[in-house]
Amino acid sequence: MKRIAVILSGCGVFDGSEIHETVLLLLAAKRAGCDCTVFAPDAEQTETVNHSTGARVAETRNILVEANRIARGAARSLAEFAPAEYDALILPGGFGAVKNLCDFYYKGADFAVIPALEKALLETHRLNKPVGATCIAPILLAKVFKGCRITLGAQSESSDAAVKIGAEHVVASRDETVTDETYRLVSTPAYMCADADISTVAAGAENLMREILKLA
Amino acid sequence: MKRIAVILSGCGVFDGSEIHETVLLLLAAKRAGCDCTVFAPDAEQTETVNHSTGARVAETRNILVEANRIARGAARSLAEFAPAEYDALILPGGFGAVKNLCDFYYKGADFAVIPALEKALLETHRLNKPVGATCIAPILLAKVFKGCRITLGAQSESSDAAVKIGAEHVVASRDETVTDETYRLVSTPAYMCADADISTVAAGAENLMREILKLA
Repeated sequence: MKRIAVILSGCGVFDGSEIHETVLLLLAAKRAGCDCTVFAPDAEQTETVNHSTGARVAETRNILVEANRIARGAARSLAEFAPAEYDALILPGGFGAVKNLCDFYYKGADFAVIPALEKALLETHRLNKPVGATCIAPILLAKVFKGCRITLGAQSESSDAAVKIGAEHVVASRDETVTDETYRLVSTPAYMCADADISTVAAGAENLMREILKLA
Repeated sequence: MKRIAVILSGCGVFDGSEIHETVLLLLAAKRAGCDCTVFAPDAEQTETVNHSTGARVAETRNILVEANRIARGAARSLAEFAPAEYDALILPGGFGAVKNLCDFYYKGADFAVIPALEKALLETHRLNKPVGATCIAPILLAKVFKGCRITLGAQSESSDAAVKIGAEHVVASRDETVTDETYRLVSTPAYMCADADISTVAAGAENLMREILKLA
């Protein structure tokens, strides 16, 4: 049984992990016979967004505590993540990926990945293990793995930023995957595509998991 | 295309809707060619639970605003629900179903369903449309539809309470469904079963949706 680490950034598309993407990645992994462990930074979210209005609210929430809503209490601190214990690492999307795992949302191309995640990604790669990312999360790979090949769906400001920092951006449709054989990365656009829906997100998660397992 | 109303109680297993069950019901509906609309009461949650520790915290959250984390901002107030516009109604589980949609968690068998949901259920039934419920949510059906036939998984304090208020409780395994032909109700245990996991919850959601569509 393969062991997969899934790193979350909260709970909810506008300030945390995109919930459909996360659940459907966990389902795809389980159906492929894998055992998942969820991790998240034990730190405050950079912001909390009212998901009815889209407005930022004066409320402080902890990334790990909120991620545990999706993980049903089983999530662990990212500080405890040991890449040697897992066969692959997965990063679901959602604005939390670019607000809490890095500051791309605030700074554009000149952003920085939080040290714990950068270390997790570099160590996973050093051990020749694959990394998967959905939606906007591949921008994290673009920063950490210089010159890597990813997709963020259609051409956009985000994909332009990925190219600016040296990545090769491949346009892909909503459930297609793009693989970087050198760095062992797999990405899929999920909700980055305007025509995505929950069934295409499920198909993308299944496709991503199949490609990850080929590399694991 | 069938239209399904999904009524949520928040976002997170311990104080709202169970996230896996909700997402996998939305996926099963979509894959069956249905269009879902999410509703939730526009009211304060009775409590907020830290999902890392399980402890109740001094924080006030709105049921609809939190449900919108799962619904990606598209959820509507339960006050706007018009049963005539939908072909079926679905109630996912999670402690929110027995904390926010009724007070079963606090009062046991002597509980009351919130008026907006009771009205929604009675009106849906009056129009001969089916209702589905997963996990602990069938207890709501036991209260509103006197003498109905439901499952809450294995025999438990909750199923004893259902029997006490007049329901017929049928023991079912994690992804099995139980149908009440008279009231047109379908229930499945999901995470009420100790041996459930995300893949059995997905199977249960698919089974429930198939039975619902036979009745719709």
